[in-house]
Amino acid sequence: MSDIEEHRKKIEEITLEMIKLLKTRTDIAKQIGDAKANLGMTVTDEEREDALRKQVTKLCKEIDLDQSTALKFLNFLFNESVKVQSDNKQTHLSVFLKAKALEEEGKKIIHLEVGEPDFKPPEEVKTALAEIYDKGYGKYGSPKGITELRNALAARENQEYAKVSEENIMICPGARFGVYLAITTLLNPGDEIIVIEPAWPAYKDCALNAGVKVRTIKTTLETEWEPSVEQINNAINENTKMIVINYPNNPTGQWGNQLVDRIINAAKKHDLYVLSDEIYLEYDRREERGALFARWWDVQYEKTIITKSFSKSHAMTGYRIGYVIAEPSIIEKMSKLQALSLTNVSEPIQYVALQALEADVSGNTEIINSRLEALIKIAKDIGLEFIEPEGAMYLFAKTKYKDFDATKFSEKLLEHGVAIAPGEGFGDYKEFFRITAIDETKLKEGMTILDSVLKESYE
Amino acid sequence: MSDIEEHRKKIEEITLEMIKLLKTRTDIAKQIGDAKANLGMTVTDEEREDALRKQVTKLCKEIDLDQSTALKFLNFLFNESVKVQSDNKQTHLSVFLKAKALEEEGKKIIHLEVGEPDFKPPEEVKTALAEIYDKGYGKYGSPKGITELRNALAARENQEYAKVSEENIMICPGARFGVYLAITTLLNPGDEIIVIEPAWPAYKDCALNAGVKVRTIKTTLETEWEPSVEQINNAINENTKMIVINYPNNPTGQWGNQLVDRIINAAKKHDLYVLSDEIYLEYDRREERGALFARWWDVQYEKTIITKSFSKSHAMTGYRIGYVIAEPSIIEKMSKLQALSLTNVSEPIQYVALQALEADVSGNTEIINSRLEALIKIAKDIGLEFIEPEGAMYLFAKTKYKDFDATKFSEKLLEHGVAIAPGEGFGDYKEFFRITAIDETKLKEGMTILDSVLKESYE
Repeated sequence: MSDIEEHRKKIEEITLEMIKLLKTRTDIAKQIGDAKANLGMTVTDEEREDALRKQVTKLCKEIDLDQSTALKFLNFLFNESVKVQSDNKQTHLSVFLKAKALEEEGKKIIHLEVGEPDFKPPEEVKTALAEIYDKGYGKYGSPKGITELRNALAARENQEYAKVSEENIMICPGARFGVYLAITTLLNPGDEIIVIEPAWPAYKDCALNAGVKVRTIKTTLETEWEPSVEQINNAINENTKMIVINYPNNPTGQWGNQLVDRIINAAKKHDLYVLSDEIYLEYDRREERGALFARWWDVQYEKTIITKSFSKSHAMTGYRIGYVIAEPSIIEKMSKLQALSLTNVSEPIQYVALQALEADVSGNTEIINSRLEALIKIAKDIGLEFIEPEGAMYLFAKTKYKDFDATKFSEKLLEHGVAIAPGEGFGDYKEFFRITAIDETKLKEGMTILDSVLKESYE
Repeated sequence: MSDIEEHRKKIEEITLEMIKLLKTRTDIAKQIGDAKANLGMTVTDEEREDALRKQVTKLCKEIDLDQSTALKFLNFLFNESVKVQSDNKQTHLSVFLKAKALEEEGKKIIHLEVGEPDFKPPEEVKTALAEIYDKGYGKYGSPKGITELRNALAARENQEYAKVSEENIMICPGARFGVYLAITTLLNPGDEIIVIEPAWPAYKDCALNAGVKVRTIKTTLETEWEPSVEQINNAINENTKMIVINYPNNPTGQWGNQLVDRIINAAKKHDLYVLSDEIYLEYDRREERGALFARWWDVQYEKTIITKSFSKSHAMTGYRIGYVIAEPSIIEKMSKLQALSLTNVSEPIQYVALQALEADVSGNTEIINSRLEALIKIAKDIGLEFIEPEGAMYLFAKTKYKDFDATKFSEKLLEHGVAIAPGEGFGDYKEFFRITAIDETKLKEGMTILDSVLKESYE
């Protein structure tokens, strides 16, 4: 017992010593931050962080300390002050909320910023809504969702090569909540996640919120938005626990194609979770459709989590209903936090989704594709630079102008009644912006204004 | 620039020094672990951790380091497993899910375990549901909720003494999500929260999930479920940041009365948030009704967060709709995480709630009160021991039998088709259980079975 007592004293001393060093470190970091701000430099410096990471790895070998513990510790130090709140980037969502506020003041806004189909949900939704009350939907239920809906979705996902049962399905209030649950419950603070940019900002924000270190792979228009094998391999280290893929991609509309095989193979090799966001699956412009990529059941990779949604396929964005497909053990972990935070997903909305599954929504794919065609044509006419999207519902473009700042441009454009999503919301893409393929008449109107504000500003 | 370079070198040195200390610390911790294992002791030691926490807090003041940074760092070192997954207690929710599973197998269950009114939502809900589709509700919107509903709720909460505007209101998918957001976004890991037990388990679980330390105040039937001033004062220390109150109380049905003033005063003195869960406000059995307690606008205490819901007042449990009342700065913080995880609350359900506000639901109070009367009478007749509830919809009781184990009893009772909520879900109350006041016929049937299983088992 006296041994234990002595050891404890020692631990206390060391802990207090570490806190003192933490104080000194924080003070110096602040000084660097101030100096950088004066010089107009950004605060984080990935190269610098990587160099220090290498030194720590080396030291670990010398002093025989478990590397993953040390690197987690290091990530903790790097990440410490990063909360979602600190992020002031303009995203599609922040522009959307500004645009909404302007509308409430009576202004007319053309929404090219938000990923929201501008047609109605199928008629089945209307009928279902009217039935809810008498059928008695609206009680507490399982956090994983009502059995009927889970069964119906399992049947829909089931293929010859794919055994999917109700146990693989969890209903969520939107795919976003599925992404939030996956990142928050499967990863620990100090773990790392890989995000291929440009990317929907929620992956990164959910990770930061959970104290998870984000490693970004930056892809370029020049390489058709595909990362190289080297980029993927370089991003993986001992702390890497998850990689996010999203094809068809928001914002680029690319499908990834063979690339996805490479990513899954790397994930298998390094035992990573693959979070595959497939909410645009129905919006497919390729000649050969339906080529799925992240068939976890097919490739027999049990660490894949797929998120899907009724938002785009059934035009039910604001209903907030989506689902997760994964191994039951993963569903179990995620449903614990869903139960804790929500009890269950709104039962009336689950019933509506169940009925919506009866609808034939293939027409929506055609609508979106013809709008994308129109958008591509106009964008070419006014000289925007982009890779033609193979799917989803967006165009991710830049202009021919040097030093073009899409954030400032989007602010100016909003004053003229057109909202677009600035590229910085998707990563380090200050010169790009995202345009949503909406109804052709409004689209043309919006693009004409965009073109004239662009010329006015830069010519 | 050379300044920055010098600072960076220093940061590197400090970081490597910290890693070395981490190595020493890890080694010693392992030695303690081994020694403890040999002595058959458990690994964690709360008292010890608390003592170290106090030392660190003291040191922070001396060296002027932000406490929350240091305590987070300390939690990282403790490697606290803060995941919800670890808890295996039987709660009203776990019993409810078991009962639901039995029902799906075709068994008949009388639900005395769940806090779910067994009458229908008002007719206005039916009309509203049928209108949603044509009115076009179902789009993305503000994470704080639709303006019409926020305005309507503000008007409803506004009183002569109480200035409440739309800015004080945030809509949530159930009050539970409001509780989750308040605890997760307003507190930091290492902070402390006070929960007065018996209590709804979500407060504690949300805190554990956020790495927040829970201090419980245990109240007893003998003191009419009221904590003493000493108990409150003893629970507050420098790390305390929030106290949760819930009156009328689940599970005891008590109102707290003067007690609440004492708590608010203590909170003001120590600058604590007061999280006041008021979802049972409409279920009031006292002669003099309407005496609110946590009028943050009245008492001018800006750190109060009130959670309310349509679940009980409008019998809309499974719709998942509630709201938060707080200062705009608090709403702002909470809405950031709501936006990140959910985008917005289901818009169709928000519209339904807006219309439900038109209904006169005072009849529901009368229904619940007459059921409580019936429940109290039966419970007295069969010899249960309890304090008569002044509100809410439950009875929290024990039996006259020594060594009575409510968890085992509830398992046995479920086999006989009656579900009750074991006391251990509400804290250290293994001899108690909670019964919900449901429809009188079913209530009598359930209580007759309860009585006979009780006698069979203990006499």
